[in-house]
Formats: sequence, structure tokens, C-alpha cells
Amino acid sequence: MKAVGVIVEYNPFHNGHLHHLQETRRKTNADCLIAVMSGNFLQRGEPAIVSKWARTKMALASGIDIVIELPYAFAVQAAERFASGAVRLLAAIGCRELCFGSESGDIAAFLSAADTWSEQQEPFDSLVRAELARGQSFPRAAAAAWQALGAAPLDLSKPNNVLGFAYVKAIRQHALPMTPHTIPRRAAGYHDESASHPSIASATSVRKILRQTGQLEAVAAYVPAAALDQLRQYQETYGRLHDWEMYFPLLKYRLLTATEADLRRIAGVEEGIEHRLKQHIAAAETFAAFIAAVKTKRYTWTRLQRLCTHVLTHFTKEAQSEAADPTYIRLLGMSETGRRYLQQVKKQLALPLVAKAAKLNGDPLYEQEKRAAAAYAAAFPEPLASRAFREEYATAPIYFSGMERK
Amino acid sequence: MKAVGVIVEYNPFHNGHLHHLQETRRKTNADCLIAVMSGNFLQRGEPAIVSKWARTKMALASGIDIVIELPYAFAVQAAERFASGAVRLLAAIGCRELCFGSESGDIAAFLSAADTWSEQQEPFDSLVRAELARGQSFPRAAAAAWQALGAAPLDLSKPNNVLGFAYVKAIRQHALPMTPHTIPRRAAGYHDESASHPSIASATSVRKILRQTGQLEAVAAYVPAAALDQLRQYQETYGRLHDWEMYFPLLKYRLLTATEADLRRIAGVEEGIEHRLKQHIAAAETFAAFIAAVKTKRYTWTRLQRLCTHVLTHFTKEAQSEAADPTYIRLLGMSETGRRYLQQVKKQLALPLVAKAAKLNGDPLYEQEKRAAAAYAAAFPEPLASRAFREEYATAPIYFSGMERK
Repeated sequence: MKAVGVIVEYNPFHNGHLHHLQETRRKTNADCLIAVMSGNFLQRGEPAIVSKWARTKMALASGIDIVIELPYAFAVQAAERFASGAVRLLAAIGCRELCFGSESGDIAAFLSAADTWSEQQEPFDSLVRAELARGQSFPRAAAAAWQALGAAPLDLSKPNNVLGFAYVKAIRQHALPMTPHTIPRRAAGYHDESASHPSIASATSVRKILRQTGQLEAVAAYVPAAALDQLRQYQETYGRLHDWEMYFPLLKYRLLTATEADLRRIAGVEEGIEHRLKQHIAAAETFAAFIAAVKTKRYTWTRLQRLCTHVLTHFTKEAQSEAADPTYIRLLGMSETGRRYLQQVKKQLALPLVAKAAKLNGDPLYEQEKRAAAAYAAAFPEPLASRAFREEYATAPIYFSGMERK
Repeated sequence: MKAVGVIVEYNPFHNGHLHHLQETRRKTNADCLIAVMSGNFLQRGEPAIVSKWARTKMALASGIDIVIELPYAFAVQAAERFASGAVRLLAAIGCRELCFGSESGDIAAFLSAADTWSEQQEPFDSLVRAELARGQSFPRAAAAAWQALGAAPLDLSKPNNVLGFAYVKAIRQHALPMTPHTIPRRAAGYHDESASHPSIASATSVRKILRQTGQLEAVAAYVPAAALDQLRQYQETYGRLHDWEMYFPLLKYRLLTATEADLRRIAGVEEGIEHRLKQHIAAAETFAAFIAAVKTKRYTWTRLQRLCTHVLTHFTKEAQSEAADPTYIRLLGMSETGRRYLQQVKKQLALPLVAKAAKLNGDPLYEQEKRAAAAYAAAFPEPLASRAFREEYATAPIYFSGMERK
């Protein structure tokens, strides 16, 4: 069976993701589509709108065959570390191909950029430095350097190109036997918050519409019925969807009771930013107001969100350095096809495949996963907080027979 | 002017406290009655039912002339450290006399017990050890030792006797020029939760009645009108009174996201209790259920509450060891008499008298006070959380002209 990997967040799953899956199957003739997915917190330092289990169900209902978890220590990171964890897990579960969405849509551009970057590292770096010194932005400097070295200039001002480039680089760096493909993203840009296409909107826009209207029906045009159903079930169980504001009281409590020395132990706290965090937290009444107050040119919104997520989940530099490599493949869910695939390959996998979270107790990567899950659950009142946390370690991988598919 | 000290929590102020103040004035002919009072968290490891400011107003309205704060690092401690901080602060502000309530009511018994304890320490300790080895409780062992050494046997099974003995010992230990007096406590015992006397009930009973009925009027018989008025005003402003259950979500969040190594840094976490805390927290849905699950013969309810308060307020062993001695006298409030007294003595005080909390920034004792205040405020929703925390450092000492007295 031919296994093809995708790297996803599904926050929430929407028609653009469905398009990407269909195109991936068409382009690669995959027998088994494997997604490595972020858990409770996402790459840009935000809580997932619904749990990993609800998002796993969305994925399986829409054509994914296997969902495995990208551990927190890789998921809530800038592109390089995120990519490095994700492609290594896909390789470990036997994917020889990867297919990612990008603004570029041209895999040759990624390959040539990565070749230049790895084989002509010194001239590339010195060209970039020269351009930066002339006041160019990093994306423009990199494009100029590639052009000067005869490579196709990849536009790194586009977020999906940045991630794609990181995937291709990580494949090279770890010498993984994996062929990358890319599919052009349709219609909505990654950051685009305004929905103009009739059925495609970015996850950011979908969340924004949900937040502004409070109505699940308002996104029905952009989200497959099965995904909408998961959002509805989650909201019925937990009374709400997740957003950062829900965690602000916990973040504020933590920032006010931690000393600056405690904050310096947290991953991502560098260059004295702990002073700014302490300085602005007491007066802030919302997360948005807090980040706006702390933000500087150097500390972007995303970087601060990620850092605040690390404060919230108590992800220390020590935990980060203990978590340099994936140590297990955690199964979140599978279809019948996925089950057959795993049956076939499970004895040859490079890392242990784990279905029962209890087996991972003591593994530094999983201990951080539990801390993240505890923080994710903590904003609910009891008994929902206990229920949400229990879901983390007591839920069996979702099995999706296909009968549930609409 | 003759200044006499009392050591209080006023959680809340009730008729028994009023009786103690009237008896103290009668017995000592005090010109100026000075209370050293716990702040946001109390000796037995509980949040104060209302803020330090509301409780300061209760005190001033009922005859106290000066209220100073017992810093968190002394307030939330077993009897010896609590006493040691309290009597040194009273001595530092010029009290030559101390008057405490006790079950015994006989100061000679305290003095003779303390003399024996300090002058015949070795025979006393070995007698106590022998009795303990025979299976006696500590109070019975101590009573037997005192009797054998010819001293009056003080009953240390009574909580106010325990505190009183600690005050007298601390006066001796620090060689303070301070004469202790004691007044027998009337009617209700310290721990007594049932109200049988028509106008006297313990603070524990008063809080229990408030919790069970949700009605301030239900305690009107036991609480002076001015104190009841403070409870009412606080409830109107903040929507509720404080209790431990209100903090359970924060405690649970903290216990689940901290590592065992983090918990070992917290004051009071000894002998592996961090394992039990971690073991029982996930399933607990209330504070009471949690403590009941963790409790052992060795770890009593009070000891666990205190330790949980330290987790909640992030009071570390390091912070505790930095806070061995009082470094300032923080003024919370004063009457006109109090103002005149301070005018008279302020140049001779042994420690700086501080009215503006901002002047204390950086002092380890005050940094812990702010952490405690942040935790105390954090259970409120915004904007009340910000308001409650701001009260900590932006409130000027209460001035009570006497015109407000009813």
C-alpha cells in the first residue's frame, strides 16, 4: 500500500482542506493518506478550536486514513522545528511521499531553493546578509540570493511557502527517503480573514466568523457537513469552542504569580521579554489588549502568542531541550484502510506505534502533552474540566469504519 | 501613649473579637490598640473571606487604632513562625504589651510553661520524647513533662493555647521588651462550627453559616453592624465572598501543569507529598474532595490547605528562606488616635513604617505579598480580577476619623 503524508492542524477542517486531500489523492495515487496533526495547541500559539479527538473525526470523515499526533514540543514552534518533527514522524510511519499546499504550487521551486540553500550555503548566506544590510526584508533578500545563484526564487513572504520550504529542508537534513509534492492553495490565503470565495475560506476566517456570529450555521458554506457536525457536538458537550480569551485569566494568574526567574525558564522567553510581560499584565483585561501592549517589532504577535502558550502550558527550555527528536508515533484515529495499512507495516516502523496514552507516561514529549492538555481543559468549570482532561489520556484512538461517512 | 498589641485575622470580625478588644482595653488601659493582621491568606491556609482592606475597616470601626499587615511569609505558617513574625512586628511598632485570647485564660501558666521550655529544654524534651514513645499525643506528653518539672501544665490540645504559647516563646526567644496578657475566650471554641451562644460564634461558624445560607443577615446576631456592612459592600462590589472552592480551578491547573520537581520547590512540600498531590488532582472536582483524598495521618487538613495555598501563590522554599525576618511595618489603616501615636513614635521605630506599597517593590516579603494578592484576585472574572489586584498596591491606608463609628 502506498502511504502519503500530509501535515495538518484542521482548526477547523474546511473545504480548502478537503480540496487539498482530493488533489493529494489524485496527484499521488495514495492508497493510505496519513495526517500528522497538532494537538491542543497550534503552530501559531493558539488553542485549537475543538479537541484533537473532534478534529481527528473531522479528518477521518473527510478522507484521511490515519491521524497521528504531532507532539506539543514540535507543534507549537516556528517553521523549522515544526517541520522537522512532522516529516520525521511521517517517515517513521512509512510515508515515502509528502504532499503540502503552498502559494507557489511549484515543487521544482522548493527543490531548487533547498538545493541552493544546502549546497551553496555560504554564498547564499552572504548574499542574504548583504541584502538584509541594504534594508531588504528577509523574504526579498532570500529571493534575490536565489536569483543570483541561478535558482528559482521562492517567495518566502507567503506563509505556506515558508512551511513547505521547511518541510523540504527537513527531508534533506534528515536524509529521509521521502518525495515532496505541492498543490497550489486555492482562493483564500492563509491569513486571509475575509471570506470572498463562495465555498472556500481560510481556517482563520472560519474562526473569525464563528467568533463574531456565535453561529455554527454561519460557516456551513465553508465547512463539510461532517466537520460542522463535530463542531456542533463539541459545543453541545462543552458549552463553547476554544479561543485565547478563554485562557487569559489562567495566563494572567500565571504571569503574576511567577517570578521573572521562573519566566526565564520558559521556552521562548529571551532578551528580557519577561520584563515586558510582567510590566503589562496587571493592567490588561483581555488577551488581545495584553499582546497589543507587549508587541514590538522584534516580538511579533505570533511569537508572543507562542511564548504565552508555553507559559500557559509550562513548557520549559529544559523540557524543550529534552524533546529534540520524536520518540513515539501516537495514533489518534484510523479508517478501515488505515487499520489494514498499520497491520501490514507495524513490525517495521522506526518508532513505537502507541494507541494507549498510558504507555507514554514518563516520556518527556508525552509529559508535556499532558501539561498542554491540562491547560487546555483548565478553562472549563468543573465537572467539564475533569472530563476534558480525562479525554487526553483515556480516549482510545478513533476507529472510523466508513459507515459514518456521508 | 501606651500601645498594646493584638494578633488577629478577623475572618470576619465578630462579637467575640469585640469582646476581646473591650477586655484588652479594660485589662491594659491601652491608649492605642494595635492589630497585626494577616492579609489575603490566613494561618490555616485559607483565603480571607473578604480583602485586607474590608477587614481593616471592620477592625477600625470596632476599636482598633492601628492595623499593620502580617506578611504572607509569616501569616500562612504553623504557630511558631506565625508568632515570631507577629510579635516582632508589634515590638517594632512600639508595643510593650501584648494581649491574646486563650482557652486557658491564665498568663502564669503560659509564662511558667515557657520558662520551663527555655530553661530546662533538655529534660523537657527528653520527658516529651519518652511520653511520645509511650504512644501519648504531643499535647498530653507536653503536659506530663511540665507537671514532672513542676510547671503548670498548659493544655496544648487547645488551638489558642498553642498560639499563645508560641507568642510567649517568641517574646522570650527574641528578648523583646514586651509583657504578655491573656483573656479567656468566651463561649465558642476556635474550631466550633455550631452556634449555640445567642451573640457569640467563632469565625469558622460565621463562615459556615454564610456558606450554607448565602445570606448575610443570617450572621447578624454574631457580627457587629459595621462588620456586616463591610461584608455587604464587598459582596456588592465583587459579587461574592471568598472561599477555597473558588480557587480550586487555579490550584488544579497549577498542580497539573507543574512537574514534581517544580512542586518540590514549593514551601511545605516535603516527604514525597508531591506524588500524592499529582496522583489525586486529575480526578478531583472540588477542593474538599481533593484534600480528603490526599489527607493522611501525617498530612493533616490544615497542613495540606497551607501547602495548597503555597502552591496557589507560588511561595517557594527559596522565598521562604529569604523571608526570615520582618523588614518593614506596612500600615493598612489607622484611627485618629492611631495617627497621633504614629506621629509621636515614627522617628524611633525599629523598622521602616510604610504607607505606600510601591515603596516595597523588590522586598522579598512584599514580592510574595503581591503574588498572594494576584492569586487572591485571579478567581474573579475581568474586570474584577484587575480591580481586586490593583487594590493590593494602589490602596492608601484606611483613615478612620471615628465619625464613621456607629
